[in-house]
Amino acid sequence: MRIGGIEAGGTKFVCAVSENDSQNIIDKVSFPTGDPEETLDEVKDFFKKHQIEAVGVASFGPVDLNKKSKTYGSFLNTPKEKWKDYPLLDQLKTLFDIPVFLDTDVNAACLAEYKYGAGKGADTCLYITVGTGLGAGLVQNGEIYQGKNHSEMGHVIIKKHHDDPFNGCCPYHGSCIEGMASGLAIEKRYGKKGIELTENNRVWEIEAYYLAQAIMNYYVVLIPEKVILGGGVLKQEKLYPLIRSYFTKEMNGYLDVGSVDELIVAPELNDEQGVIGAMELIGRSLS
Amino acid sequence: MRIGGIEAGGTKFVCAVSENDSQNIIDKVSFPTGDPEETLDEVKDFFKKHQIEAVGVASFGPVDLNKKSKTYGSFLNTPKEKWKDYPLLDQLKTLFDIPVFLDTDVNAACLAEYKYGAGKGADTCLYITVGTGLGAGLVQNGEIYQGKNHSEMGHVIIKKHHDDPFNGCCPYHGSCIEGMASGLAIEKRYGKKGIELTENNRVWEIEAYYLAQAIMNYYVVLIPEKVILGGGVLKQEKLYPLIRSYFTKEMNGYLDVGSVDELIVAPELNDEQGVIGAMELIGRSLS
Ligand SMILES: Nc1ncnc2c1ncn2[C@@H]1O[C@H](COP(=O)(O)OP(=O)(O)O)[C@@H](O)[C@H]1O
Ligand SMILES: Nc1ncnc2c1ncn2[C@@H]1O[C@H](COP(=O)(O)OP(=O)(O)O)[C@@H](O)[C@H]1O
Ligand SMILES: [Zn+2]
Ligand SMILES: [Zn+2]
Repeated sequence: MRIGGIEAGGTKFVCAVSENDSQNIIDKVSFPTGDPEETLDEVKDFFKKHQIEAVGVASFGPVDLNKKSKTYGSFLNTPKEKWKDYPLLDQLKTLFDIPVFLDTDVNAACLAEYKYGAGKGADTCLYITVGTGLGAGLVQNGEIYQGKNHSEMGHVIIKKHHDDPFNGCCPYHGSCIEGMASGLAIEKRYGKKGIELTENNRVWEIEAYYLAQAIMNYYVVLIPEKVILGGGVLKQEKLYPLIRSYFTKEMNGYLDVGSVDELIVAPELNDEQGVIGAMELIGRSLS
Repeated sequence: MRIGGIEAGGTKFVCAVSENDSQNIIDKVSFPTGDPEETLDEVKDFFKKHQIEAVGVASFGPVDLNKKSKTYGSFLNTPKEKWKDYPLLDQLKTLFDIPVFLDTDVNAACLAEYKYGAGKGADTCLYITVGTGLGAGLVQNGEIYQGKNHSEMGHVIIKKHHDDPFNGCCPYHGSCIEGMASGLAIEKRYGKKGIELTENNRVWEIEAYYLAQAIMNYYVVLIPEKVILGGGVLKQEKLYPLIRSYFTKEMNGYLDVGSVDELIVAPELNDEQGVIGAMELIGRSLS
């Protein structure tokens, strides 16, 4: 049986087809995200070569995942103007005429890492991605956590670093964690991309300080067994020990988190957690 | 059938017996929390008059609720020295010789409000209490949320009010939400109890500012349908409209929370949510 997976990212789309097992990818393509119509045309072109029986979609957000809502499956307040209010799920259903399952990119990635990667065996598994934006998803006992709608963890409040004049770039909140620590925030604060700042230790100290605070906030609410940190910004591997150390400082011995090296870890699915996770959505009742 | 409920608070214990229905309380007592032994003696004295078949306990925290842990059912890092490491569940089991069910005071209160009070019908229901300390619990689809252990939402990070010189009173984190907005924090900041500060609007502006931030942080992680705010400090009813207004400001239109007046509400169980919730724990597999 062939299944399809779509990682619908704000920067790029990844489409893949797997045979029997989501990890057994037999064909894959990636292209930049354009306007909705042209992007969905490319999706269609790719999949028409394959006879797939169902498709899972891991989308950037925010997207309405409240089944009771009239706009279920549509984009909400995204800064990507052309995608705002776009009825993604309905359009994909029209396009495919096979079952379509939708959730967020981070929720799907979390599911994949939980099943096959760094989250294996963790009853409560949190996945955080720090890319252009910042988001997180939770899987508990194999199920994706969802309240009235999908979580929006990128927008938690944190406290400012005493030596950071930047006021944040979230269009809604300024200095929420996405506004202070996303890839875009780094670019706006320093006028350079993260990859060009590799040698500047101060940049990564401040970045780790903020990410540790976000993890502290998620931790005390959710008490996860595993916190997986991925996304483009985490290609700076030196961030991991810094984040662990700031997190330990924030926690200050209050809760016994076990080994912080085992708690806060890198993903293991080589940037395929999104598209594999998309396929893992298939058959789930949630969406 | 008679059942017992114990609200084991840091300040006082409430014990009750109900007939058939947890809300049908036929006897109730309340006494100040002393040392563990003397307190449990009082508990014993009260219940020996009744033939109860099971007892539920809603305890102050932190208490170890990880069933895989060697210290399951014992207190953890509490500032109440005599209770630290005290094996509450084991002691109660010895005392009673009937099934004992344990969870936190806020989780139990959340359950009671969800079943009979302000949270009725809310698939994702958050209950926050602001008393001497500050804590919160979540009930989702009728089940208490628990990660590796019970949540510790009192310790989320928030940002400081620009006009607040107080550095917080959490022994572990200083300025976490409990350190800044609990009843104890109010007392330490102003040298007076909340009830003596009723006329000072500035106090309640700052209090609402902090509580709105905590709610923002819980909201983006959990996306609750209902946020119930209780505890002694919320006896200042003017806090509700202030908190709603600061919360709306923090959210700044990013997520559609519906009517904020219906989202952020007072409890409805007249300070009995703890002990009713304790009885509602009976029969749950979690503890
Ligand atoms: N080696 C690196 N060091 C620091 N930042 C990086 C690195 N590689 C990519 N980034 C940043 O990560 C972000 C892109 O994240 P990514 O997860 O790849 O994609 P997206 O979030 O757009 O889907 C950009 O802001 C980019 O500058
Ligand atoms: N009317 C009031 N206004 C402001 N604060 C109050 C009021 N009544 C009680 N409090 C505060 O609430 C706290 C006690 O909270 P409560 O929930 O009753 O008990 P506890 O948390 O000790 O179990 C104290 O800090 C007290 O000063
Ligand atoms: Zn934001
Ligand atoms: Zn604290």
